[in-house]
Amino acid sequence: MNQDENNSLGIVEVKTVKLELPDGGFKLESGQNLSEIDVAYETYSTLAAERDNVVFVCHALTGDAHVAGRHKPDDPKPGWWDEMIGPGKGIDTQNYCVICANVLGGCKGTTGPSSTNPATGKPYGSAFPSITVGDMVDVQKLLLEQIGIERLAAVIGGSLGGMQVLEWSVRYPDKVDNCICIGAASSITAQALAFNAVGRDAIKSDACWNGGDYYETGNAPLTGLAQARKLAHITYLSPEIMTKKFGRGQKDGRFEIDSYLEHKGQTFVDRFDANSYLRIAEAMDKYDLAESRGTVKEAFEKAQSKFLIVALSSDWLFPPEQSRELANALLAAGRQVSYCYLKAPYGHDAFLINIEHLAATVKAFLPWVSQGEIEESDRKPVIDRKPDYDTIVGMVKKNARVLDLGCGSGGLLTVLAEERAIAGAGIDINLEDVIRVLDKGFDIFHRDIDAGLAMVPDGAYDYAVLGQTLQFSHKPQLVLREMLRVAKEGIVSFPNSAKLTDRLRFALGGRMPRSGETHLEWYDTRNIHVTTMKDFVDLCRHEGVSIVEEQYIANGSLSNALAGCGLGGLCADLMVVKIARAG
Amino acid sequence: MNQDENNSLGIVEVKTVKLELPDGGFKLESGQNLSEIDVAYETYSTLAAERDNVVFVCHALTGDAHVAGRHKPDDPKPGWWDEMIGPGKGIDTQNYCVICANVLGGCKGTTGPSSTNPATGKPYGSAFPSITVGDMVDVQKLLLEQIGIERLAAVIGGSLGGMQVLEWSVRYPDKVDNCICIGAASSITAQALAFNAVGRDAIKSDACWNGGDYYETGNAPLTGLAQARKLAHITYLSPEIMTKKFGRGQKDGRFEIDSYLEHKGQTFVDRFDANSYLRIAEAMDKYDLAESRGTVKEAFEKAQSKFLIVALSSDWLFPPEQSRELANALLAAGRQVSYCYLKAPYGHDAFLINIEHLAATVKAFLPWVSQGEIEESDRKPVIDRKPDYDTIVGMVKKNARVLDLGCGSGGLLTVLAEERAIAGAGIDINLEDVIRVLDKGFDIFHRDIDAGLAMVPDGAYDYAVLGQTLQFSHKPQLVLREMLRVAKEGIVSFPNSAKLTDRLRFALGGRMPRSGETHLEWYDTRNIHVTTMKDFVDLCRHEGVSIVEEQYIANGSLSNALAGCGLGGLCADLMVVKIARAG
Repeated sequence: MNQDENNSLGIVEVKTVKLELPDGGFKLESGQNLSEIDVAYETYSTLAAERDNVVFVCHALTGDAHVAGRHKPDDPKPGWWDEMIGPGKGIDTQNYCVICANVLGGCKGTTGPSSTNPATGKPYGSAFPSITVGDMVDVQKLLLEQIGIERLAAVIGGSLGGMQVLEWSVRYPDKVDNCICIGAASSITAQALAFNAVGRDAIKSDACWNGGDYYETGNAPLTGLAQARKLAHITYLSPEIMTKKFGRGQKDGRFEIDSYLEHKGQTFVDRFDANSYLRIAEAMDKYDLAESRGTVKEAFEKAQSKFLIVALSSDWLFPPEQSRELANALLAAGRQVSYCYLKAPYGHDAFLINIEHLAATVKAFLPWVSQGEIEESDRKPVIDRKPDYDTIVGMVKKNARVLDLGCGSGGLLTVLAEERAIAGAGIDINLEDVIRVLDKGFDIFHRDIDAGLAMVPDGAYDYAVLGQTLQFSHKPQLVLREMLRVAKEGIVSFPNSAKLTDRLRFALGGRMPRSGETHLEWYDTRNIHVTTMKDFVDLCRHEGVSIVEEQYIANGSLSNALAGCGLGGLCADLMVVKIARAG
Repeated sequence: MNQDENNSLGIVEVKTVKLELPDGGFKLESGQNLSEIDVAYETYSTLAAERDNVVFVCHALTGDAHVAGRHKPDDPKPGWWDEMIGPGKGIDTQNYCVICANVLGGCKGTTGPSSTNPATGKPYGSAFPSITVGDMVDVQKLLLEQIGIERLAAVIGGSLGGMQVLEWSVRYPDKVDNCICIGAASSITAQALAFNAVGRDAIKSDACWNGGDYYETGNAPLTGLAQARKLAHITYLSPEIMTKKFGRGQKDGRFEIDSYLEHKGQTFVDRFDANSYLRIAEAMDKYDLAESRGTVKEAFEKAQSKFLIVALSSDWLFPPEQSRELANALLAAGRQVSYCYLKAPYGHDAFLINIEHLAATVKAFLPWVSQGEIEESDRKPVIDRKPDYDTIVGMVKKNARVLDLGCGSGGLLTVLAEERAIAGAGIDINLEDVIRVLDKGFDIFHRDIDAGLAMVPDGAYDYAVLGQTLQFSHKPQLVLREMLRVAKEGIVSFPNSAKLTDRLRFALGGRMPRSGETHLEWYDTRNIHVTTMKDFVDLCRHEGVSIVEEQYIANGSLSNALAGCGLGGLCADLMVVKIARAG
């Protein structure tokens, strides 16, 4: 393995192996058999002695095993995910051994419709059977066994590759530690089915199609295949990026977008086979994680891995809602899952293009594998300990499950994990914080708490914590209600807005009280629900919530003195309140 | 004209007229000529004696002149916009005479590629010239002149029909009183161009295409045309409605969406000609209102009509942003324009399907044409006069231009129009209110004022009024800044939150002040920026805004007494403040 200076893997090679199949061959989900299967695959970096550092990459519809590095020094482009894989990259080859294989049905070295049918000595063509995502995963499993890999540190993929990841997680639950599923879904939408139908039409109505048996005619259905690719390519890009890149630009009396698609179609037919395209697209159309497993939630009840689900904001082929549904189903099934919503202008192709944020997220999620060169002390995060942490820690029992709403970079979760050995998860809207929390090993949902916690099952946690976030919430009533739905008890801290100084300022000065952060004026957009302890009690009463415990936090000695005589509310800077459902 | 009991137009007929062309024929924008043009059109209801009640309907890509009613009593379906047109409907045939004509290049009676070429005695086929939206409108104009219509009360259309409306407004500005443009744009997006390119490919790669000269071969490129239609149909529906209607349903081993599209493709080829499809789609691709006119704003500077621009929320072929851009350009050009954003799940097809809201909006916008049967008193709206109206009216000069932010149903605008003869426009987020304001004849922008007033040009108004809306705004600072950008002076009224009772409640009770609407608690989602007069003054000072005038409004006599001694702020229920940029 060579590595050049630009953090690339350098020169890599594709290997092909003939699978050792049982008598009768490989049984497909359709019931048909394949008597021989070759698999083309690439491996990068070194397998650890314990063979526990393998990341298996699943490729998408028209991908292949060549995922990173170059086959020859003068290759114009490296493998399709070179930005993700290499030393120091998202999947760090200093820690992980990476494997990717061309899928069953493909045309890049793994057995597919253009391969020789051992029964006839001619290409399969129309005789190649229908395949499924499950068949693809079974073949990957056989390959890995044959090369001596019993267990995967992680399996990762985008699009159809993400569907393979999901299938791995429920088909071989005890063989995968971590699953990373990007821009995918438990099944494709009606609209995606519709586009695939039109693409299929284009291929099958090509005069050269010949029912799929075109290998020996000398004329493949290239026109139809190019049309299918052009259409598919539209669905891979967001409308915004198309407008930005091409707009209504014209050249030689032709719209630039038109010439661009034409180019995409033409270069595609040079590298891909129409029958493979149809077989793999069919597998994608028919894939439904829930089918034969009840619901998506029930399917995930079999899974044992830790999951990272990544949604791509401008993806309209696998829209973010579908990723969120996966994350929700995983939560409902009681799995460990993190969900990340990446702002990604490139549409579905955002798992391949401009992937800095995606790579950082993947890197943070993957468990660190020590190679001995990093000291333990370098790994310990520095926590900016906030004034309410000690009080909150004091309210939490050992070994509890804690959800931290608006968890920031995970400081409180880290303290709770160290001092109370909690199992923690967070919710935050800021991507940088999400990456930090992933890096600390906690589960995290990347979303706005105002959007509700609908994805969190009832009673999933012992405590839901809302630390100094109430005043920024647009829907404090909803947040409170949801906290006590998902957890047995809630812990809320908020700045005291009814300090003596505030009271005098309003009563005598006629100015509205402000939150603890005095640099925020009443009209500042963040600071929208300033509240006092009494207001909070009113809300709790209205919601049928009991106050279990209340603590005032103040700096000055006056505050402490006043607190001593029950007047803490007049001087405290922060309130920390533990609540529970009444009765 | 028959009218059946269901508010239908009953039996209608299509007429065809040969245009009286000048010597040399009709000159197209391309420079080519057509020596003969037939136009098929339908007219409904009666032309007024003054010939001033004509609404001309422009149809979309594959529409035709048969817009409402039935040709024969047993026709399974009425015309394509029957829900919009008829007695009592959106375009009320009790008031308006409606005309629709098949476009130039079409295949439903108006001259197009399948018509006989007088030069050869055979169908034009490939010899039919390229046409433009401008050519279509010129033909419509000639038709109208020939049947004695010099002026249109309104021109209306959706999609490509909307583009024709825009072209009418700038090509014949003095001939159109009102323009209604639905789900359209000044030009289509790069994505829409891309889809059209793929559709065109499908037709032109059909083995029967023969370069467009297929009329005499007996084999039209029906397979390609059906494929183009299937693809286009996907773009007409929102993904949500596709999922709702079809999801992943299967029947006889085939996805239902697939069978549905197949059906749509097949029925389309029975009624449409491939050459017409290509010519009209090309006109749509190439249409650019700004081309040769500078910018869209500059193009609209020629227009004289009053405009209604309607965006359809789930339309992704002509996304709502494009309609908003039209409305913004019209405003920038100083035109009278209303903008309405309809929640419409059916995607682009929402201008044809489930059009109750659209019809109500159109009806409200169209000027009422008296037929004598409605008493004047019935038309006068009943205004719920709010306590701050008189004070605000007192602050506004006669004949001023007033923008009312959060105008509700237009009560204040109506009072200002009656008592100050203002030219008024409003902004509101509620569709029912928008329809009421349209009905009162004011311009209205249907949007959230928190989203900013970016579309309103600097200094477009004398006054911007914000009546009891500040406390609901998420961004009061931005709103204030924008008010004084778009108007010379601002008038803000808001509930007093620093009444004596509030002050005592907070200082002694420790509860946050509430807005004037005391049923709203601090945590209620609407009531987020409670403010006092002093707070408001602070904000104005911070923004460099002068207070020109301030008035307190109170019910009780104590308040009046206190106001008399300069203590109005302690008891007033409402504050009304006139502001201006300082210096």
